[in-house]
Formats: sequence, structure tokens, C-alpha cells
Amino acid sequence: MNTYARPVSIAGIGSTRFGKMPERSIESLALEAAVAAIEDAGVERRRIGAVYLGNFVGGALVGQEILAGLLGDQLDLHGVPCTKVEGACASGGIALRHACLAVATGQCDVALAVGVEKMSHASTAQVTSALNCAMDNRADGPAGLTFPGFFGLVWGAHAARYGTTRRDVSAVVRKNKANGMRNPLAQQGRLITDEEIDASALIADPLRLHDCCPVSDGAAAVVVVARDVWSGNRSRLVDVLASVQTSGPARIAGFDDPCSFPATVRAAQLAFAQSGITASELAFVELHDCFSIAEIVDSEDLGIVPRGQGHHWAAEGRTAVDGDMPINPSGGLLAKGHPVGATGLGQAFEAVRQLRGEHANQVRDAVFGMTHNLGGTGVACTVSILARGDR
Amino acid sequence: MNTYARPVSIAGIGSTRFGKMPERSIESLALEAAVAAIEDAGVERRRIGAVYLGNFVGGALVGQEILAGLLGDQLDLHGVPCTKVEGACASGGIALRHACLAVATGQCDVALAVGVEKMSHASTAQVTSALNCAMDNRADGPAGLTFPGFFGLVWGAHAARYGTTRRDVSAVVRKNKANGMRNPLAQQGRLITDEEIDASALIADPLRLHDCCPVSDGAAAVVVVARDVWSGNRSRLVDVLASVQTSGPARIAGFDDPCSFPATVRAAQLAFAQSGITASELAFVELHDCFSIAEIVDSEDLGIVPRGQGHHWAAEGRTAVDGDMPINPSGGLLAKGHPVGATGLGQAFEAVRQLRGEHANQVRDAVFGMTHNLGGTGVACTVSILARGDR
Repeated sequence: MNTYARPVSIAGIGSTRFGKMPERSIESLALEAAVAAIEDAGVERRRIGAVYLGNFVGGALVGQEILAGLLGDQLDLHGVPCTKVEGACASGGIALRHACLAVATGQCDVALAVGVEKMSHASTAQVTSALNCAMDNRADGPAGLTFPGFFGLVWGAHAARYGTTRRDVSAVVRKNKANGMRNPLAQQGRLITDEEIDASALIADPLRLHDCCPVSDGAAAVVVVARDVWSGNRSRLVDVLASVQTSGPARIAGFDDPCSFPATVRAAQLAFAQSGITASELAFVELHDCFSIAEIVDSEDLGIVPRGQGHHWAAEGRTAVDGDMPINPSGGLLAKGHPVGATGLGQAFEAVRQLRGEHANQVRDAVFGMTHNLGGTGVACTVSILARGDR
Repeated sequence: MNTYARPVSIAGIGSTRFGKMPERSIESLALEAAVAAIEDAGVERRRIGAVYLGNFVGGALVGQEILAGLLGDQLDLHGVPCTKVEGACASGGIALRHACLAVATGQCDVALAVGVEKMSHASTAQVTSALNCAMDNRADGPAGLTFPGFFGLVWGAHAARYGTTRRDVSAVVRKNKANGMRNPLAQQGRLITDEEIDASALIADPLRLHDCCPVSDGAAAVVVVARDVWSGNRSRLVDVLASVQTSGPARIAGFDDPCSFPATVRAAQLAFAQSGITASELAFVELHDCFSIAEIVDSEDLGIVPRGQGHHWAAEGRTAVDGDMPINPSGGLLAKGHPVGATGLGQAFEAVRQLRGEHANQVRDAVFGMTHNLGGTGVACTVSILARGDR
């Protein structure tokens, strides 16, 4: 798997706010995040030796591809390989992994990873259609399946096996929306009640509106550097101990168990093995709560909550920022928003702020943190484990 | 740049024919090429440790993304990282480079690179719009620029500086269409006369219909292996001496010289330096002749023809299969076709057949060959240098 014989660190982070910015161009979002990350790192642009840009529906919704090259052009990085990577909702995590690989394998000393998406200008029908580009449309398309429909089925399976209730799942929504209030970049931070959730529109039974992440625009970026040659400020470095990418079944018929995403299980196992740390050492996890039920399933798949206990941990407040295993102190996709291709790098942005001790919703003793980015029906996944550089 | 401390070879190749196959799904095209490459290599699927898939307009034209994951699922490669890479028309070359990197840097011993595109089901207007996703649409879009328009401007500049004539450029068309007759995978092999070219529809002055590559469907794939651990048939291995990726200006306003693509110049220089061979050692070059004039400019940029002499070499037959520098013995994009995301791997397929000595339009003494894949307005480029394994 990944070889990190050469240690890799994140030296700079940047992000736009996440939200509805239909007037912004997709290029300007990516550029804003990239410039902020480069400035935060204090690195000269000419030292950047590789650019990876995660984006999902630029082709389908915006009519603009070659986004990595456009960003490289705008940054005057001529000559440098600039690559768009796509793995549906995991595109940002894949960009991060490839930037880490470029540095870890000695291709360059500094690499830029950017994620971006622009969605809010389109109609709900257009967005639903574009998001369905992440399905196996020949296998599951004819059934009329959408992603809310898919995660509704996941919820049903989890409830049938473990007795997961509406109140349990609402606890995820309440926590993440509240966490979002402490995140200045978040789209939907608020206090929300069980009653409001119950009264919101039914999207795909049992998922209601507030169980679904919003449609978002935004971008996030990180500058990855080789620790051995980094001459900048070392005190703010965050080390990447592991950045793993896996794949899983694409079609519903390919799942042995609808309560689990094999790509997440495998990615987490590999990330723990590669980093040499255990779940109990994690101070927080930023995971892929595209829907409320996803946070429960993901937490079990990642091995940070016992199998079949995800809904109990949520309901009991054990995943709150001051709980046993803080999950999504950023507000997660549910409250921070989900500009699809940006999400994986938005999670890295949040994790770095936690590990620097400068997060607005800071967890205690943040030495190690995890990020988890899931694509489509679990067909692509990335898990990264980050660590405070001066630990 | 790329580190090939661990030697990398191509052990297997596969390709669909290139042409109009509107009834075929994009997944089935990719799968056909991948399965053929795996069978040609004689490798067990479970040894594949990474999948890179090049595709450009799957989102805009087909409504299907996550193609790398879908392919991995269909090949039962669960767990393996599967990544779509996009760099407009250079997407296939970028996939090849990343498969080579995955093996060369020890992430795995066997990697699969696939390129695919499906276009012929769409209307000309839809295709033109989708291809324009490779432009900087905010900078050049308002002028109404299309790719035929862009390469028409390139031709005008080359003609103004070097006196390039319609007959010179037609020599490229005649050669490539004739070469295509010897390629069983080609879409448009034929004998064509100057008069037919002159009489064909004017697309974007001075480009006529036969100066433009056709709209194509198709897929191609290669299996990349670590030479040090390869236990299969060694006599058919083709070594990858260099696989370089660069970037260049995205906007017309960014070009100092419309007669040259800086990304190609730099990629070729790096590929020669990395491989340690010179242009005079190349037995053939498969280059990116998306339009007839592009072959002339590319040949100069690559350093295989003297600057300002590309049109003369074409007109004098020096780039024919039995000439001084055979260019596009496959028929190139003009005759073989240009299923965009597949093209870079289609070029690798052709080069491997030449270097195995089994090409239907075989060049003499094929020990070293080059492939060149150009994206958009030259914003992305890959150049690879391949060598017969038993040289």
C-alpha cells in the first residue's frame, strides 16, 4: 500500500465558506482556497511540483472540465503536472491522497491538493440528475434509485437489525447542526429540535429534509510538504500518518450487508495499520455524513464505535465535541455543507485546525484525528489519519 | 520529476475498435479493453493493485461518472484504489503515467490503466459543447471559440510565419488516412485525394472536414508491471523509459507563440532527459493529431522535426511509415479516431504493437517509440518513451 518512507505533512490550509454562492465561478472558488492554502503555508508557488484537484460534477453541472489545468494556469504553475481526480463524493480525499503520494515518493517536495464543486446555480432536478452520475446507472438507474433512496434503504436495514429509531438518528442531525453554529465556514449551523426534524418534508422514507446534507458550493485546499526538507514554520505542521484509498461494490446487488460499506471498513483498517495508532487514540473524526444515517453506519465501519452501537452513541451524546469520540465537530456535511468535490479537503482543513489547536469548536487533547470521505454507494473511499506535528 | 528507480514495463494491451458504436455502453467499452489487456498480460486479476481510468466527458455527455470504480467493481477488484483522472484530451496519457507511478514507487506490482469515451450517440451540437469543457470558458468562451476555431488560428499563425500551404497540411491528412487502412481498429482508413480534402466542408477557416478527427467511441487499456518481480512472459514486455506529464497556458491570451505548445516542448525535453535517448533513436512517434495542423506543430514541439520544417517533412513524405521519422503509423487521431479519454492509451497500444514487431503497419527497427497526448488548448500534455524489452 502507500509508502510513507518519506514523512509528509500539511503546511498550509485554505477554504472558502461552504454555502450557496451561485454568482461565483467554479474557478474562482478553487483559486480562493488554493491561494489561501499557499499563503498559510508561506511557500513560494514555484516550489509546487504537483497539483491534484478533486471535482465531481463540473462536467455535468457547470460545463467546465480541465479544472486542474485552469487552476495551475491561474497560479502560473506552467509545466507542473495538474490532474483532476474523480471518485464521486470521495474526489477531494483522492486528491489529498495523490498529493501526499507525490511528495512521499519523491516526485516533488511540495504538492497542492484542491477540491471544488459548484452546484447551487442548478435546479433540484439537475442536481439530483448530476449526483446520480455517481451511481451505476445501468444496474440501479432503471429502478429510479437516487442517493436519498439508497440511504433510506440503509437506514431501514440498520433499523431492522439494531432497532435504530427516528430519535436516535435525529440526535446526529441535532449535534451536527449545533456544531455548525461554531464553524464560521458552515452553511447551516443552527439549533434544531426533534419536532422540526419530524415536521420536515419526507424525501425518501424514512429520510426527511433535515437528514440530508444541503446543496453547496465551495472549495478547500491543502499544501502538502516533505517534512525532511521543509524550512518554514515547523510548529504548525500537521503530519499525514496515512492517506488510504479503497473501492467497494457499486451496485446495490453487490452488497452482502446493507448496514456496512466494505470500502470504509478496509480503508480504516489499512489507515490504522499504516499509522500504527488505534481508534482510542483519535481525538476526533470528521466523517462522511451525507445523510444522518450515514454517520451512524460510518462510525461503526471505521471501528470508532462498536458495531450495532452507532445509534446509541449518537443518542447518548458520546459523539459530541466533549464526548468519548467526537464526530464531526465541524458540523459535518449535514451542517457545514457538501460541495461534493471539496468535501474531502474540507475535512482535512477542519482536522488541521483541530490539530493546531485553533478550531472554533475545539476538541480536547487533539493529537490524532481521522478524516473519512465516501463516494457514491461506497464505491470509493478515503481515510486519512493526521497528527499534530509537535506531538 | 518521475522516479523510475524501479523499472516499469507494459505486459499487456487491449483495445476496442475505435468508431461509432452508439449502442455500446461506456462501461462495456472500458471493460472490453481492460479484460483484453489483462488476458494479454496473462496476469491474475487479484494482483492488480491500482486502477487509473482516463475519461473526459462522461459527466457531460453520458451522465456517468465514478467510471474507475464501476470498472473495478466489474473486474471484482474490491478494495483496490480506482481513480478517474481527467486532463481533457490528455486524460488517457495521464492514466498511463499514474499507473506507471503506482508501480515505479512500489505501491503495487501490477497496475491497470484504461481510457474510455462515448460520444457518437450525441448530436454535433452536444459534442461541440462537451468538448468545449476543455476550454477556459470564462476567458475564451465569450468569443465563441471552439477547438476547430482554435486550431484554425494555429494554422494561420504557422502559415504566416513559415509559409505552410493547404497542400502541405493535406499531406498529413492523406498519410494518416492511408495509414488507417492498415489498422484494423481504425475508424476512417481510406485513400483520400487533395481534391476531396479541398471539396470537404469548411469547418473553421482554413480547417476543412477532413482536417478534423472524427467523433469516436472506444476504449484502450494497458497492464503495467514491475519488471523486477514479473514472472510472466518476458519476451513481450515493453519498457516504459519515461512517462511525463506537464501543463501549459489555458487561455489564448496566455500563449507567447501560437505556433507552439509549451507543455509539449517541456514534456518532450523531460522525457528525453529521463530516458536518456535522443530523437534520432526513435523508430516512430504516435502524436496528438486532433487536427491536421496539430501534427505539424506537435512534430516541431517534440523536437523530432526541426522548428519550422514540420510542413515540409509532411509534404516530402519524411513522416511516412518508411520515412525518416514515421509519425502516426496507426492512422493517428485523424484516421484511427479520437474517443477522447481513450486516445492516450490507444497510442500506447499502438506503440506496444510496434515494439513487439506485430503491428499491421510495422515500422523498421522498432526499438524505441514515443507517444504524445495533448489536452485542451495545450493546458495538459503527456509524453512517454517506450522501448522493446529485449533490446
